[in-house]
Amino acid sequence: MIRIGIMGYGNLGRGIECAVKQNADMELKAVFTRRNPETVRILTEGVPVYPAEEAVKRKEEIDVLILCGGSATDLPGQTPEYAKHFTVVDSFDTHARIPEHFANVDKAAVEGGNIAVISAGWDPGMFSLNRLYANAVLPNGNDYTFWGKGVSQGHSDAIRRVAGVADGKQYTIPVEQALAAVRSGENPELSVRDKHIRECFVVPEEGADLAKIEEEIKTMPNYFSDYDTTVHFITQEELNRNHSGIPHGGFVIRSGKTGWNEENSHVIEYSLRLDSNPEFTASVIAACARAAYRMKAEGMKGCKTVFDIAPAYLSALDGAQLRASML
Amino acid sequence: MIRIGIMGYGNLGRGIECAVKQNADMELKAVFTRRNPETVRILTEGVPVYPAEEAVKRKEEIDVLILCGGSATDLPGQTPEYAKHFTVVDSFDTHARIPEHFANVDKAAVEGGNIAVISAGWDPGMFSLNRLYANAVLPNGNDYTFWGKGVSQGHSDAIRRVAGVADGKQYTIPVEQALAAVRSGENPELSVRDKHIRECFVVPEEGADLAKIEEEIKTMPNYFSDYDTTVHFITQEELNRNHSGIPHGGFVIRSGKTGWNEENSHVIEYSLRLDSNPEFTASVIAACARAAYRMKAEGMKGCKTVFDIAPAYLSALDGAQLRASML
Repeated sequence: MIRIGIMGYGNLGRGIECAVKQNADMELKAVFTRRNPETVRILTEGVPVYPAEEAVKRKEEIDVLILCGGSATDLPGQTPEYAKHFTVVDSFDTHARIPEHFANVDKAAVEGGNIAVISAGWDPGMFSLNRLYANAVLPNGNDYTFWGKGVSQGHSDAIRRVAGVADGKQYTIPVEQALAAVRSGENPELSVRDKHIRECFVVPEEGADLAKIEEEIKTMPNYFSDYDTTVHFITQEELNRNHSGIPHGGFVIRSGKTGWNEENSHVIEYSLRLDSNPEFTASVIAACARAAYRMKAEGMKGCKTVFDIAPAYLSALDGAQLRASML
Repeated sequence: MIRIGIMGYGNLGRGIECAVKQNADMELKAVFTRRNPETVRILTEGVPVYPAEEAVKRKEEIDVLILCGGSATDLPGQTPEYAKHFTVVDSFDTHARIPEHFANVDKAAVEGGNIAVISAGWDPGMFSLNRLYANAVLPNGNDYTFWGKGVSQGHSDAIRRVAGVADGKQYTIPVEQALAAVRSGENPELSVRDKHIRECFVVPEEGADLAKIEEEIKTMPNYFSDYDTTVHFITQEELNRNHSGIPHGGFVIRSGKTGWNEENSHVIEYSLRLDSNPEFTASVIAACARAAYRMKAEGMKGCKTVFDIAPAYLSALDGAQLRASML
């Protein structure tokens, strides 16, 4: 059994807990939290919740510590720190800062003799893998990534900061015509506006100026001004009833040419349709935790990404079973 | 530069030659053939064509020998034989016999201190990878593989063996409603007939009994009797004009549940739309040749499949470049 520890118990931590339940070779040993442990109710019976500071002294009880903090402020410090003591997995998702995070984590993991898998999830993660495979197979081609339909936390937060807005949620939606053009192998050049639309569901405060809210959202730089954005005003009750989920997903498509004179076209498409973004991310992390555990057991160390993990390490089946059942 | 040798120059061998041209870190060093080399015209200028028997004595000139024979009779003997002397890649695709082939090739490759990648292509190959990844991420779910729309060589051959048939081609086509049901996450149980239809384009011999041909095709056991099959009679000229390509493709879909009470559904879909089945297969093989070359250079040996290859080995980019550009 792979003994799993969870550091941080929000949506992602709860997703890890659910994923561990589905994987027969894993057991949840402990949850660590920066909140008062007395106030944290977890789902698994009999598993203790400890203060975060106790983690290191309990390191002998844990095979893989899964870091469920945020990429902005938690993980840049936490992952290198814990990689000195534990085999760890995180879901660091600030794409531009991955090289720096990798370097910091690698140093710590090598020092600790541990494996640290960073940026596990679906993007970065499964989408990254599909970009790499498709590029390796079709060196002459074009890449396209579309996100959605799904809830963007950052854009929902941005809506809620607008004066007169009580609550709100934003969906990122791929533009169907753009997807169709890409799938046809036409290799279209697509602007930001061509690829995604943004749909907002906004609960206004009583007496708020709706036209002003809509204008302010639609012209907000970085978040909305480069997109075709629609704004729907709804009640809090409607928002709660129809928009409480955290769905997401998207498409990674590469189209390319082969042949002596590049006469043949090929389209590779990978897509996800997810009811729960954090639970799916957690499911990827759980598979990476298995891989990390095995790589450490084989004497490897250092920082790894999904690019460095031979796929067989992710599966509970052994090599012979995999070849017989899935190859 | 990775020096590539091609053993066998049919559609697949020609596809390898085209793939090598697209990969800047590879060069074609030699083509080996069982035919009279004088009769084999290849596309790349200045590259020699040798008799197959000369391969072993030229092993110092070749980094990776790509075996382009058939799975039925060529590869079971060739791959173990050449794995003693070369780093090799094959596209062995008789799924049921992969465990046996693996064992034979592994023994020879370990003995020779070489890497031998078997079953590279898209199914087995890219489809297998997607089955493995999706199963590792969603342990609680169902797998579906659909093939097509594409030309089935085996079924086309079967048509051509029917009395009164001069020529013919068969397309395997996924049933749209079955795809839609799978994508919806319904986890349908699908019979052979539910999943694929078979469409045949047949050139009859002069004076042949068309009704009899159609009946014989539609009731042919194993090949057609379990499917809804349509038969179109056309002229040789039409067949040549409209059906000379070798397109293929398909879909690997896994739908699964997550959540404490399995309350959330997810659908992972991978699809290929290929103008040229052999050229795409060859493109996967070329990437695997790069991986094999690097794994051998790192001192690894033995038989490997795509399951055993860390994705980064397949790419011409190094780890830092991959993390910065694709993660």
